[in-house]
Amino acid sequence: MAEAYQKEFFNVTFPTEYVAHVEINRPEKMNAFKEVMWLNLSSIFRQLSHDPNVRAVILTGAGDRAFTAGLDVQAASTSGVLATQPDSSVAPLDTARKANMLRRHILEFQDCISNIEKCEKPVLCVLHGISFGLALDISLACDVRISTATTKFSVKEVDIGLAADIGTLSRLPHSVGNLSWVKDICLSARIFGSDEALQHGLVSSVYKDKAVAVAEAVKLATTIASKSPVATLGTKEIINYSRDKTVAEGLNYTAVWNAAMVQTDDVKDAMLSGMQKKTPKFSKL
Amino acid sequence: MAEAYQKEFFNVTFPTEYVAHVEINRPEKMNAFKEVMWLNLSSIFRQLSHDPNVRAVILTGAGDRAFTAGLDVQAASTSGVLATQPDSSVAPLDTARKANMLRRHILEFQDCISNIEKCEKPVLCVLHGISFGLALDISLACDVRISTATTKFSVKEVDIGLAADIGTLSRLPHSVGNLSWVKDICLSARIFGSDEALQHGLVSSVYKDKAVAVAEAVKLATTIASKSPVATLGTKEIINYSRDKTVAEGLNYTAVWNAAMVQTDDVKDAMLSGMQKKTPKFSKL
Amino acid sequence: MAEAYQKEFFNVTFPTEYVAHVEINRPEKMNAFKEVMWLNLSSIFRQLSHDPNVRAVILTGAGDRAFTAGLDVQAASTSGVLATQPDSSVAPLDTARKANMLRRHILEFQDCISNIEKCEKPVLCVLHGISFGLALDISLACDVRISTATTKFSVKEVDIGLAADIGTLSRLPHSVGNLSWVKDICLSARIFGSDEALQHGLVSSVYKDKAVAVAEAVKLATTIASKSPVATLGTKEIINYSRDKTVAEGLNYTAVWNAAMVQTDDVKDAMLSGMQKKTPKFSKL
Amino acid sequence: MAEAYQKEFFNVTFPTEYVAHVEINRPEKMNAFKEVMWLNLSSIFRQLSHDPNVRAVILTGAGDRAFTAGLDVQAASTSGVLATQPDSSVAPLDTARKANMLRRHILEFQDCISNIEKCEKPVLCVLHGISFGLALDISLACDVRISTATTKFSVKEVDIGLAADIGTLSRLPHSVGNLSWVKDICLSARIFGSDEALQHGLVSSVYKDKAVAVAEAVKLATTIASKSPVATLGTKEIINYSRDKTVAEGLNYTAVWNAAMVQTDDVKDAMLSGMQKKTPKFSKL
Amino acid sequence: MAEAYQKEFFNVTFPTEYVAHVEINRPEKMNAFKEVMWLNLSSIFRQLSHDPNVRAVILTGAGDRAFTAGLDVQAASTSGVLATQPDSSVAPLDTARKANMLRRHILEFQDCISNIEKCEKPVLCVLHGISFGLALDISLACDVRISTATTKFSVKEVDIGLAADIGTLSRLPHSVGNLSWVKDICLSARIFGSDEALQHGLVSSVYKDKAVAVAEAVKLATTIASKSPVATLGTKEIINYSRDKTVAEGLNYTAVWNAAMVQTDDVKDAMLSGMQKKTPKFSKL
Amino acid sequence: MAEAYQKEFFNVTFPTEYVAHVEINRPEKMNAFKEVMWLNLSSIFRQLSHDPNVRAVILTGAGDRAFTAGLDVQAASTSGVLATQPDSSVAPLDTARKANMLRRHILEFQDCISNIEKCEKPVLCVLHGISFGLALDISLACDVRISTATTKFSVKEVDIGLAADIGTLSRLPHSVGNLSWVKDICLSARIFGSDEALQHGLVSSVYKDKAVAVAEAVKLATTIASKSPVATLGTKEIINYSRDKTVAEGLNYTAVWNAAMVQTDDVKDAMLSGMQKKTPKFSKL
Repeated sequence: MAEAYQKEFFNVTFPTEYVAHVEINRPEKMNAFKEVMWLNLSSIFRQLSHDPNVRAVILTGAGDRAFTAGLDVQAASTSGVLATQPDSSVAPLDTARKANMLRRHILEFQDCISNIEKCEKPVLCVLHGISFGLALDISLACDVRISTATTKFSVKEVDIGLAADIGTLSRLPHSVGNLSWVKDICLSARIFGSDEALQHGLVSSVYKDKAVAVAEAVKLATTIASKSPVATLGTKEIINYSRDKTVAEGLNYTAVWNAAMVQTDDVKDAMLSGMQKKTPKFSKL
Repeated sequence: MAEAYQKEFFNVTFPTEYVAHVEINRPEKMNAFKEVMWLNLSSIFRQLSHDPNVRAVILTGAGDRAFTAGLDVQAASTSGVLATQPDSSVAPLDTARKANMLRRHILEFQDCISNIEKCEKPVLCVLHGISFGLALDISLACDVRISTATTKFSVKEVDIGLAADIGTLSRLPHSVGNLSWVKDICLSARIFGSDEALQHGLVSSVYKDKAVAVAEAVKLATTIASKSPVATLGTKEIINYSRDKTVAEGLNYTAVWNAAMVQTDDVKDAMLSGMQKKTPKFSKL
Repeated sequence: MAEAYQKEFFNVTFPTEYVAHVEINRPEKMNAFKEVMWLNLSSIFRQLSHDPNVRAVILTGAGDRAFTAGLDVQAASTSGVLATQPDSSVAPLDTARKANMLRRHILEFQDCISNIEKCEKPVLCVLHGISFGLALDISLACDVRISTATTKFSVKEVDIGLAADIGTLSRLPHSVGNLSWVKDICLSARIFGSDEALQHGLVSSVYKDKAVAVAEAVKLATTIASKSPVATLGTKEIINYSRDKTVAEGLNYTAVWNAAMVQTDDVKDAMLSGMQKKTPKFSKL
Repeated sequence: MAEAYQKEFFNVTFPTEYVAHVEINRPEKMNAFKEVMWLNLSSIFRQLSHDPNVRAVILTGAGDRAFTAGLDVQAASTSGVLATQPDSSVAPLDTARKANMLRRHILEFQDCISNIEKCEKPVLCVLHGISFGLALDISLACDVRISTATTKFSVKEVDIGLAADIGTLSRLPHSVGNLSWVKDICLSARIFGSDEALQHGLVSSVYKDKAVAVAEAVKLATTIASKSPVATLGTKEIINYSRDKTVAEGLNYTAVWNAAMVQTDDVKDAMLSGMQKKTPKFSKL
Repeated sequence: MAEAYQKEFFNVTFPTEYVAHVEINRPEKMNAFKEVMWLNLSSIFRQLSHDPNVRAVILTGAGDRAFTAGLDVQAASTSGVLATQPDSSVAPLDTARKANMLRRHILEFQDCISNIEKCEKPVLCVLHGISFGLALDISLACDVRISTATTKFSVKEVDIGLAADIGTLSRLPHSVGNLSWVKDICLSARIFGSDEALQHGLVSSVYKDKAVAVAEAVKLATTIASKSPVATLGTKEIINYSRDKTVAEGLNYTAVWNAAMVQTDDVKDAMLSGMQKKTPKFSKL
Repeated sequence: MAEAYQKEFFNVTFPTEYVAHVEINRPEKMNAFKEVMWLNLSSIFRQLSHDPNVRAVILTGAGDRAFTAGLDVQAASTSGVLATQPDSSVAPLDTARKANMLRRHILEFQDCISNIEKCEKPVLCVLHGISFGLALDISLACDVRISTATTKFSVKEVDIGLAADIGTLSRLPHSVGNLSWVKDICLSARIFGSDEALQHGLVSSVYKDKAVAVAEAVKLATTIASKSPVATLGTKEIINYSRDKTVAEGLNYTAVWNAAMVQTDDVKDAMLSGMQKKTPKFSKL
């Protein structure tokens, strides 16, 4: 199975039944992101979304130092849309044309990360070590965020003159409960730890070190993977829908969604298993 | 007064002036819900909403073991839309017709619980003991959630193959501040305690045991009932409206709402009483 | 510079480069608000918004006793729309005409406070001592809320027969993460302290006393003022936009916003300074 | 079948298979509405919505003079919320309490008419003769509006000092394409004819007289009733949903809706019948 | 009264009781707009909004040749944000800073025209002769659009390299019913006549020439001014609200709005006058 | 250039400078759609969107008989999700799993057609002959709809047991102004002609026959292609945005969009050309 997922800068393994483990693998650069990595990440999650052998996913960074240090600034400064030296072989664009080129580019990058959110299977992220900039953009597109006692977080973008544009500013106010804190960390780019992250709701659990955190993530993913895949799909989809809509809209959407989904055999299987104190087995999705 | 509220499986009492106490009363089954209980709950809250002698409501479960264990799965499995054996006396419906029948059914159940949210009077809920499945659906339609040190919570639905469909998934992302935790508990159906419920914002206060929690709920309800009923009606209505809308929409709605409501005699009465250090008396709503 | 901002009941000073400090200055009345103060506050923030020499603002109350005790009830009861004695020299309006007059009035007051939210520069608020009623309305229009160990908070409006109408009810459900707590404090008007305010997310940090809190606010404002003003403007604007919109809408808005803003020289300056370990200097906005 | 629908002031008949004909029956008062008529209308449409023997509905007024002249002003002026003489046996309410009582009342009336819109079966309305005030409120909750050459329309409410409050102002801007004309007729209460109604999109067809218009309505209803009831239900539901939402929201809702509904046997039956040039027969809904 | 409204480039007169007539008065330049004219227009409408002696407004252009030819391009090209020669005495801004300066400027201009839409009194616009560019932006913020047989319309902006930015693109899709035609005229900037404008719903009536059109506008305004000002205010407000919201939101807003407004004496006066066949007299707003 | 666009069942040509002509090319089957055609159509429009040599696009059907007869029902009935005979080599899915498979499939098809709407260049569609089912879905994703005097339209889906699910029901209520007519044609699947299509706003112009209609479409496309590509891009984008949003949201979006786009050289070029009565030449986008 792992072979189907071979992409540069990523390892994909399958620690337990129905659980996939995606690892960002560029530890010598603290897992900093170059353009190809975005595209590969996106492609892996599009594939996981429809893979019937996968029911939950965990996402981690290779090595001990960093989940990811964020954008590879050195690479970005020498080529691409943020290059500090314009490419002299090309006639310069006027402001509006350059704006449109940038807009296309940003939308494309945002789509890459949104493929994690759109993945039909729940995604759990383990943040450890340096977790700067893109670490936040990426983890906020995951469903569950877990960290270690020594994780260092920073919404780094204002330090390079940018309003964070790959999703942090759009998702953070819907993911945590303290808007004053959201603005504090986004406007100052200050580094903060797991205690703040847990207190204000950025992560939902903190473990001693990376090894324990990953083990606990696998355990939680395994629990989720033991549930009806129809039920976990609906749960992820309806929570994401409801996050963005009124309660009345959420209720109506739930009714339409479940009109089909309640007809699954999983309900009958689960109810009978429950009454018989057995563990139900569900078909693949 | 209590006579007007006699409904099977519920007790309604009036512990202090203007405060109603609704008790789910099926303790021998851990207050598990059958269909008739939904309808009775709904009917009680529709009546409380317009009762001029009620200014605040508390909702609890009878007995020590459970607020409610949720859906009565055994009853559900033998009849109704989730029955594991189809009724052989009726020709089976095609998928679409069954889907529409289920959609009608879910919308009807959702309406029952939404009548708690639509009740014009603030509703305080005391969660104790087993508080599974519907316990969450119901309490999230209440205004204030209070628990005891030993309450056991679980969003149980994925365990029976269902995405929670009576309101938990639609209301929870708007009620607590940690979206990672919301997904953790909804996707895993794990049991958690009051410490987590308080930390992540599901409840706003925790007391030693049920007796103390109910006493504190009555005290808070009595305080609320001592305020202007015009002001508490507006406060509940505008918070619920604003939860679902932009700030600009909330501000405009507030202005239109208060255009009438500021003309109440209660403002004058409250201001004069305040300056004279007296307790104001307000007319019924 | 301070001269340009001279308005009755307010002091405006400039403690560090690019940082403005606005002080509500009516300590003998615990900084309670009269009508003229609203208008002056609004006018100061409209001016700060476009002032190229300002990149961050802090807002505090003069004296040790109160940030503000809220509306000056005594003044309000003798004249204006809440006057307990109608002006006998004017023919009374019918209910609808009075409602429209009140609606105009409320919208005008709301606009005053919304000018803090619309200010292009981040605004940090230090809540200390008595922080009742309008203290909440005002601070919720600020970006970051800081308090002291002894601050006393209360959403006071139900005590004068009013649903809070200058913004608390519209902004609070979008600013903190525990909706049960929001309703508890708004419906009961009870006084609570900084521990609750921090736990439930109303403030993001608490300091020993007013002196320390103000010093820390100046420090944070100075950090923010050292970042690219293009980046902090975008960060404030996009977070406020995203708070009120779906994630997909937030992402698209970010892409359009940054199509222009990424073209700033600040990105190049920040990236080069970062690689050279130097502090970047940014142009005025 | 007709017996199940016996309600005062209404006739319900079944002119063709699966088609119900609801007639407002108070011709001696030009079908003007009293309170009981609202409630009966609502109850009839709630029943039609779930009646498996009904697949399309037409709504007309008895007699030649009027579809309906609107509210029975004489009845309204002597009792109820618009009574010109207050009931002296009851203590007068303060403005806010009266406002809340009126709000409850208006919401209840709106719910009555919205039951036409919520009816799962398409509703066709024939407007003829005097069609004033409530005639518009009611017909705008129907799916298709047909009129005669001599129909006299008027949005009458500003003539009695009211902004139309049972739905015209909310539905009209979403039902016709000329907003200038919407405001012209709503602000002036002027009487207009079928030529304007057709030109600006209030009705979709105009026939010589009532007899022809009703016959054509029955014909159209019969055509609709010959289609798959799963398909017409979905078509009504998704158009109403899309009218109120963005295109992207409409597309997603359609996909979720049809995930169940495409599984109907009707698709197979219709496709096979189509290829065999036969008329398909569909099961009841 | 007219004296209170003296502003350069505008005449304000009062042709009938409660009706104001605002005339754009720069006929020698075909009523083309310079910056000061925007500000004056805005200021006039803010004043009319609260003037108790005004119940309806008509807006026309002076002279026979044009309602307005739009932006005064010559003036715009020599100074201001569209100047073709930059002001060499000022250091050039970087792209992002210029973008923010432009954003401030556009928002300010939009606010000017939105004051017509926010005016509490209905506004009727007579488009005649050349009606290009801003003519559309302005008239779309009015409530009713009337034209003459020879009016020449054009959404001119793409001819000067601009997407129409003062409101045409935002309001047009909500004001007319043929989206294909909206895009045709906006993308091609072609000139079209009153027949198309009426057919596709841009105007609601067409008269022979300017004199007749203005006379008819005064007549319609006089009719509107004879209605209850409480009712016409509500009608304008609720239609504008509903244009932008779902039907369910519109219905709820109507109920809250009318909770106060139905308490007006105008309802009783209108109902009694109606039964007595007399013309009601309403108090000022 | 045409070579870059070679895809089965489509011809792409370039009749005038900057204008592309896409022709659906399966005339022997009345241009009925098979799955591969969706994918090819989508891929062509994704490419046109970024092609700097294209500024406007027209879309037509090959042959005289049909724009498109819609879905190729025969092909659909033998394989794919609507197949009337299930594939016996695969185990049947339970209802929920089949629903999810269908949802994925519908979303994928919708995305194909939405790529026409997302194309950065204006798209003009010429509907002629048989224009059934998908003809509507496709043309409603185009910007301008043109037809011939003999075009036969039908929203065919209810005839095959389906609520139209590739976009007609979501886009139609936002594209035409007569909701009664929308429901009439969608619920009855009746065939109608260009007179109705023009009267109710589905098309914006009607020409004698296909040859004239295509010639006029090329002429209009050429006019559009002569305008600033920055201006036409913004015009399409902002109209589509505004169609789905409130006026206030549209205005703000316009201000942010134009903050960058007004900085284009095209404004200066167009203004100078206009004053010099010359035709401006704009750079590629």
